[in-house]
Amino acid sequence: MNLEYIVPNEWSIIENSFDKKQVEASESIFSIGNGYMGQRANFEEAYSGETLQGNYIGGIYYPDKTRVGWWKNGYPEYFAKVLNAPNWIGIGIQVNGQELDLNLCKVSDFYRELNMKEGWLKRSFTATFDNGNAINVESIRFISYKINEIGVIQYRVKALNFDGNIQFSPYLDAGIKNEDSNYDEYFWKVLEVKHQENQAYICSETLKTEFSVCTIMQNLFTVNSQVVKVLPQVQTEEKKITFTYGFDVQVNDEIVLQKFAAVTQSMNHPKTALHGEAQKILKQATELGFQNLMEAQNDAWKRIWETADIVIEGDVKAQQAIRFNIFQLNQTYTGDDARLNIGPKGFTGEKYGGSTYWDTEAYCIPFYMSTKDKHVAQNLLKYRYNQLDKAIENASKLGFKNGAALYPMVTMNGEECHNEWEITFEEIHRNGAMLYAIYNYVNYTGDYQYIPQYGMEVMIGVARFWGQRATLSKVKNQYVILGVTGPNEYENNVHNNFYTNYIAQWCLSFTSKNLEYIKTHYTEDYQRIMGKTNLEASEVAHWQEVISKMYFPKSEEFGVYLQQDGFLDKEIIPVQDLPKTERPINQKWSWDRILRSCYIKQADVLQGLYFFENQFDKNTLEKHFDFYEPITVHESSLSPCVHSILACKLDRIDKAYELYLRTARLDLDDYNHEVDEGLHITSMAGTWLSVVQGFGGMRNFDNTLVFNPIIPKQWKSYSFKINYRGTTLKIYKNHQYTEITNLSGKPITLWVDGVQKTI
Amino acid sequence: MNLEYIVPNEWSIIENSFDKKQVEASESIFSIGNGYMGQRANFEEAYSGETLQGNYIGGIYYPDKTRVGWWKNGYPEYFAKVLNAPNWIGIGIQVNGQELDLNLCKVSDFYRELNMKEGWLKRSFTATFDNGNAINVESIRFISYKINEIGVIQYRVKALNFDGNIQFSPYLDAGIKNEDSNYDEYFWKVLEVKHQENQAYICSETLKTEFSVCTIMQNLFTVNSQVVKVLPQVQTEEKKITFTYGFDVQVNDEIVLQKFAAVTQSMNHPKTALHGEAQKILKQATELGFQNLMEAQNDAWKRIWETADIVIEGDVKAQQAIRFNIFQLNQTYTGDDARLNIGPKGFTGEKYGGSTYWDTEAYCIPFYMSTKDKHVAQNLLKYRYNQLDKAIENASKLGFKNGAALYPMVTMNGEECHNEWEITFEEIHRNGAMLYAIYNYVNYTGDYQYIPQYGMEVMIGVARFWGQRATLSKVKNQYVILGVTGPNEYENNVHNNFYTNYIAQWCLSFTSKNLEYIKTHYTEDYQRIMGKTNLEASEVAHWQEVISKMYFPKSEEFGVYLQQDGFLDKEIIPVQDLPKTERPINQKWSWDRILRSCYIKQADVLQGLYFFENQFDKNTLEKHFDFYEPITVHESSLSPCVHSILACKLDRIDKAYELYLRTARLDLDDYNHEVDEGLHITSMAGTWLSVVQGFGGMRNFDNTLVFNPIIPKQWKSYSFKINYRGTTLKIYKNHQYTEITNLSGKPITLWVDGVQKTI
Repeated sequence: MNLEYIVPNEWSIIENSFDKKQVEASESIFSIGNGYMGQRANFEEAYSGETLQGNYIGGIYYPDKTRVGWWKNGYPEYFAKVLNAPNWIGIGIQVNGQELDLNLCKVSDFYRELNMKEGWLKRSFTATFDNGNAINVESIRFISYKINEIGVIQYRVKALNFDGNIQFSPYLDAGIKNEDSNYDEYFWKVLEVKHQENQAYICSETLKTEFSVCTIMQNLFTVNSQVVKVLPQVQTEEKKITFTYGFDVQVNDEIVLQKFAAVTQSMNHPKTALHGEAQKILKQATELGFQNLMEAQNDAWKRIWETADIVIEGDVKAQQAIRFNIFQLNQTYTGDDARLNIGPKGFTGEKYGGSTYWDTEAYCIPFYMSTKDKHVAQNLLKYRYNQLDKAIENASKLGFKNGAALYPMVTMNGEECHNEWEITFEEIHRNGAMLYAIYNYVNYTGDYQYIPQYGMEVMIGVARFWGQRATLSKVKNQYVILGVTGPNEYENNVHNNFYTNYIAQWCLSFTSKNLEYIKTHYTEDYQRIMGKTNLEASEVAHWQEVISKMYFPKSEEFGVYLQQDGFLDKEIIPVQDLPKTERPINQKWSWDRILRSCYIKQADVLQGLYFFENQFDKNTLEKHFDFYEPITVHESSLSPCVHSILACKLDRIDKAYELYLRTARLDLDDYNHEVDEGLHITSMAGTWLSVVQGFGGMRNFDNTLVFNPIIPKQWKSYSFKINYRGTTLKIYKNHQYTEITNLSGKPITLWVDGVQKTI
Repeated sequence: MNLEYIVPNEWSIIENSFDKKQVEASESIFSIGNGYMGQRANFEEAYSGETLQGNYIGGIYYPDKTRVGWWKNGYPEYFAKVLNAPNWIGIGIQVNGQELDLNLCKVSDFYRELNMKEGWLKRSFTATFDNGNAINVESIRFISYKINEIGVIQYRVKALNFDGNIQFSPYLDAGIKNEDSNYDEYFWKVLEVKHQENQAYICSETLKTEFSVCTIMQNLFTVNSQVVKVLPQVQTEEKKITFTYGFDVQVNDEIVLQKFAAVTQSMNHPKTALHGEAQKILKQATELGFQNLMEAQNDAWKRIWETADIVIEGDVKAQQAIRFNIFQLNQTYTGDDARLNIGPKGFTGEKYGGSTYWDTEAYCIPFYMSTKDKHVAQNLLKYRYNQLDKAIENASKLGFKNGAALYPMVTMNGEECHNEWEITFEEIHRNGAMLYAIYNYVNYTGDYQYIPQYGMEVMIGVARFWGQRATLSKVKNQYVILGVTGPNEYENNVHNNFYTNYIAQWCLSFTSKNLEYIKTHYTEDYQRIMGKTNLEASEVAHWQEVISKMYFPKSEEFGVYLQQDGFLDKEIIPVQDLPKTERPINQKWSWDRILRSCYIKQADVLQGLYFFENQFDKNTLEKHFDFYEPITVHESSLSPCVHSILACKLDRIDKAYELYLRTARLDLDDYNHEVDEGLHITSMAGTWLSVVQGFGGMRNFDNTLVFNPIIPKQWKSYSFKINYRGTTLKIYKNHQYTEITNLSGKPITLWVDGVQKTI
C-alpha cells in the first residue's frame, strides 16, 4: 500500500482517489460502528470488483466444528466465526437501465471521508457510463449512537448531462456469506421475507447458534429538495427483498434517498418480538428524521472526545492516527452491555472469530478506565466474573481439580472457541492477565471492594490453576511450568516461559495477600467466598511453596532472564541483519523455521517487565530491552506499543517515536499488509498507552499517580485527558514545560517530573 | 470388546454369533484385499445398523483443503483422504416383499470365517422375518489374486419354511461417502450409469484428483444347482444401478447368485478405455468361473504361505494372531506396483489418509525383504527414489537449500499430505528412516550396487537436510537440532530428541562413508551423481563437523541418554501407578496434559537403540530399557514390538511375551478400542519382527547372519522361514533345541546360538 494514500487530516480519514486495489483496505479503514453493530465501508450500490462484505452484530457468531488432521482428545468443540449479517446498506442504482457499478463505470472526483469528530462516513464521486450519461453521487451514513439499533444512509444522485430515468432499489439481503468458510456455505437461515406498506423486513436466524435477527427498512425520497411519495415495485426473493422506485429526471435534477434501517436481535429482545421491536425503533428513527439523528450523532461524539481526545500539535499524521485509534475503540465497545467485549477486529472483519482475547485485560482496560466512567472497566471485569463457571469447567476438561479455572484464549460466551492446541491448551499466561486486570482496576480506581465482592472468586480459581499447573522438578528442586506458549506466539510448547512463570508466581502472591487482607477487613465476604470455593489451608500453603521455589530461566552471561529454557541454543541474529525479502517472516517462512528461530513476534519477557515495572530497576530494564528489542519482529500488532513505552522509560525517545508510529498508523499505513482483513482494534488501546504511559510517563502504583512526560522532537506539543478516580485531568506537554490541569475542581495530589503537587 | 469374541483357530478368523455392537469391529477384522483393492467385511445385503462402509482402491485419494484455526504459512496444501470407492458387493434380498436386514430380522446360526490359508471370506446365517418366513444364507467372497481387478461373490439363499418369492437385487452404487468428511459431502462425480445386455456398469471420477474408475458387474444364477437364465428388471438411478431378479420358490429351494465384479481405474488404463478393459476382464473372469477363480486363489495363498508362514505349536491364539498379521500384510501390499505402498490401515479403513508413512521403512521392509523376492523391498525403496524431487521441493518450501530433501511424513504421491505442523514440519526423524532402509536393504540382501545406482542420491539429499537442520549452539559449542517431534508423538516441538540427533548423525556418517567408497569403487556412478547433485567438498566437510560435534542429552544420574532436553524436569511416575481409569491417556487426557507428562506413546530412545543395537553394549541397552519401558504406554501400535525385541535380547522372556501378545493380537482383541476404524496394518510387520528378531534372535550385521532363538514357556515350538540372499532357511525352535534347515540347497554360513555353522 502507498503510505501516502490516506490524506493527512486532524479530524478525518480521507481518500481522494478511486483505486480498485485499495477497495478492500479502505472498506476496513472507513468502517463505522456503535458498539452494538458495525459495518465495513462497502459501497451501497453494486460493486463487481474485489470486496469483503461485512456487517457484524455484537455477540452473534457461528460455531464451526470443522476438523482437520488427527483430532486430539480435549480439543475445543468449535471455532467461533463472527458472522457477516444480513445486508441493510444495499441500494441498487440504475441510470437509463444501466447498473451503477464503480468497477465498470468511469469514476472521477472520488472522495471519501470518515469524520471522526462527528461520527459519520461520506462518499462522493462522479460516475460516467459507457453511453456518456454521468451522475454525481454523494452518500452519507452512520450507525446511530442515539438509537443503537438504527443505521441511516442519505444517498443523493444528480443527473449531470442527460434526461431520462433513474431507478433506486434499496434492498435487504440475507443471502450473505463469510469469506472464511471452507465450503462457501450459508450460515443464516431465512425465516421470513416480507413487506408491509412502506416497510420491508427479513427475519433470519443463524444456523446452530440460533441467534435471530430482524432487519427492516423504510425509504424517504426528495426530488430537488421536495419530499415526494413514490410507491415502489416490490420484488421478494427467497433471501432478499427489494423496493424499486423509478424517477424521470432532467439534467441537474437531484434525487435524495434516505434509507432508515433497524436491526433487532434475540440477545436483546424475545424472538417473537423482533419484528415488532424493529418496527417500533424504525418509527422512532423516521419520526426524528435524518437531520436530528445526525445532530444526536455529533453530540454523542462530542461527549466522547471531551474525555478521550489526545491533541498532538505539529504532526498531522500522528494526530490523525491517535484519533483514529481512539475513534475505532469507541466504535467497538461502549461498555453498556456486560455480555459484549472487544474483538481484535471489532466490527471491521471476520478474522480471529471470537470476541474476547487477553487483549482486553492486558491492553484495553487502561484505555476504557481512563477515558470513561469506571463502570465501563468494571463491566469488562464482570464479563470474566460472569464466566468463571465456564473457566472452571474448561480447566476441569484439561484435568485440573477443585475449582481451578482456566479462562479461554478466545471466547464468545465463556467457552473456549479456538482450536489450535498450542494456543488454547498452552497459551495459559492469559489466565494471569485476568488477575492483572483486577489489580490494575483496583490500583487505578481505588475501588478495593471489587475484590471481596467479585474479584476474589476469580483470583482463587486462577491461583488454584497455577498451583496445580506448576510442577516440582526434582533435578532443579524448583517449580517449573512445562509445555506453554508465551505471549510471543512464535514459540510453542516451551518450558518455563519467563513471563508465564513470573505472572503465575505473581498471581499466587497477589491472591494470597488479598485473601489475608479480606479475611480481616471483609469478614462477611470472606465467609461467603470460603463457603463457595471450599478453599483449604493446604492449598494456600502449597501456593506459598510454589511462590518461594518458582524457577526462572536466566543467562549469567547476558545478565537477563531468558524467554524460556534453552533460548540461548538458538542462533541469535538481529532482525536488522535479516534480508528485507524475508520479512514479515510469518508470510515468508514456514512455521517450523519461525519456531526454531530467535525472532520474537510480540513483547514477551519485556511484557512482564512492563506489567511489573516497579519490581525491576532501570538497569535491569535496560539490559533486557537491549537483549530482546533487536530480535523482536513486532509481527503482532500488540508488540510495538509495549516496546515504545519501555523505550520512553529508558529515555530512548527516537526509538519510542519509531515504535509509536508503527503502532499508531499500523492500519492507516498498512504496515503488515493485511488491513484488508480488518482493523487491529485491540492494539489501538496499546497506541493510546504508548502516548499516555509512554510519552506521558503516567504510572500509578500504591495509590500514587505519577507523570514524567517527554516529547518527541517531531511534535510541538501534545495533551491528553484522563479520568482518575472521578477527577478529570488534562496533561499538556511541550518542549518547554509540562502543565497539568484539573478540569473537575476536586483537588488531587500527584507527582509531576519528580515533584509532588496538589492540583 | 470381549477378548473371547474371536474363536481361536490356527488358520481362520472365526466369529460364531451375531452381535450388533461388534459389527464395525468385525468389518475391519474380516477385511479382504489383494494389494490392488480391498473391501471391509460389510454385508452384501442391506444393513440398517451401525456400519462403516469401506471399499478402497490402491492409490486413489482426495485432497481435502479444509482449514481451521489460524492457518500457518507453509502448511501443506491438503490432507489426503483415502476414499470409499463405488460399492460392488451390494446384493439386495427380498423375501416375499420383505427386505433382508440383519438389524431387523431374527438372526441365528451366524457364522463368519476369514480363511487365511486359502484367502476367502465366508458368512452364513439363518434369518427369520416378522412373518415367520426363514431363509438360510451363505455368502463366500474374495478379491482375486489371479486377476487383481476382479471381486467375486457367491451368495446362496435357501427357503427354509415357505413357498413364495425371493428377489435378488445385485447392484453397483457410486452414491457413497466417507465417514471422515466434515460436510457429509460426496467425493465422487458419477459420469455414466449404464447397462448392456447382462452387464451393468458405473463410471465415476474423484473430485479434484480426477481418478476415474469403472465398476462393472455380471450375475449368474443356479436354482437347485441348475443354471438358469433370468432376465433382470433394470433400475437406473443417478448414481446407482440395480438388476432385480425374481424367483418363485418352494420350501427347501436353493438359489445361488454368483456376482462377478471388475474394477478398473485410470492409474492403470487410459480413461477412455476403462469400460472396455473392465468388460474384457469381466469376460475373462466369467469364462473361468467361480470355481476356477477360487482354486487359483487357494494356489496363490499356498505360494505366499510357503515362504511367509510362521508356525507356533501349543498356543492357538498366538498362532492365529501371527498368521492374521502375515495375511493382512500380504493383502495390503504385493510389491508388484512401485507406485503403491503400505497404508497404516491398508484397505481396511479411512483413517490416516495417506498411504505412506515412515512405518514402511522402519517396520515393513524387513518383513517383505525376508518373505519375498528382493525386488519387492527394492520397489519400496524405489518408491522414495522416484519421489526424491518432491522431497527436495518439500524441503525448499521449508527454507532448505541446495537440494536438501525432506521426505513427507504422510504421502500419496511424494507430496506432504498431512496438515499438523508438529507432525509434518517437525517429525523429521522420518528422513533418517529413508537411509536406514537403504542400509538395511543392502546389509540384508548384499545388493550393494543399489547405493551407487539409486540410493546415493537419496542419501545426499537427506544428508544435506541434516547438515542444514542441525545448528551450532554457542553456549554448548555443539550441534543441536531444535524444534522436533520424535517417534514418541506424545512430545511436540522438543529440542535435541536423542533418536533424531542420533539418526541424523548416523545419516551424515553413512552417507560420507559410502560416498568415499563409491568414489573409488563405482567411479562412473560417482561422476554421474556428482554431476546431478553438485555436491561440494565444503558440504561434506561440514557434515564431518556436525558428526563430530553432535550433542546428545544425557543423565549422569541415571546413566541414560535422555529422550530430549529437559526430560527430567517432568514428574516421572511409572505407568503401573496410573489408575486404569485414566488409560489409554490419549482417550482420557487432554493433549497438553499428555505433552507435559513423562509418558511415551511409542519407543523413542529405545527405537534408536534397536536400530543401532550393534553400537551399544548390553548393559547400556538394559539401563535404557529399565528407564524407559516403565513409562511407555504403548498407545502406538508400532511400539510394543520394538520393546518385545529388546526384552528378548535382555533375556526377559516373560516381558517379551506380554508385549508380543499385545502387538500380535492388537486388532483381534482390540487392545486400543479402535479396531472398528480399521486394522493396524504396518504394525503387523512389527509383530513379525518380534517373532523373527525377538524370539528368533535373528540379526544381520556386516554380512553375518545370526540367530539366538529363545522360546516362551507358553509355546511348545515355533518355526519361521526367511529368504536370505536367495537361500530359504527354516528356523525351528523348541524347548530342547534349535534347528535350522536350508530349504534351497545352496550352502550358507551363519551363527546359531553363538556357534558358527555352514548349512
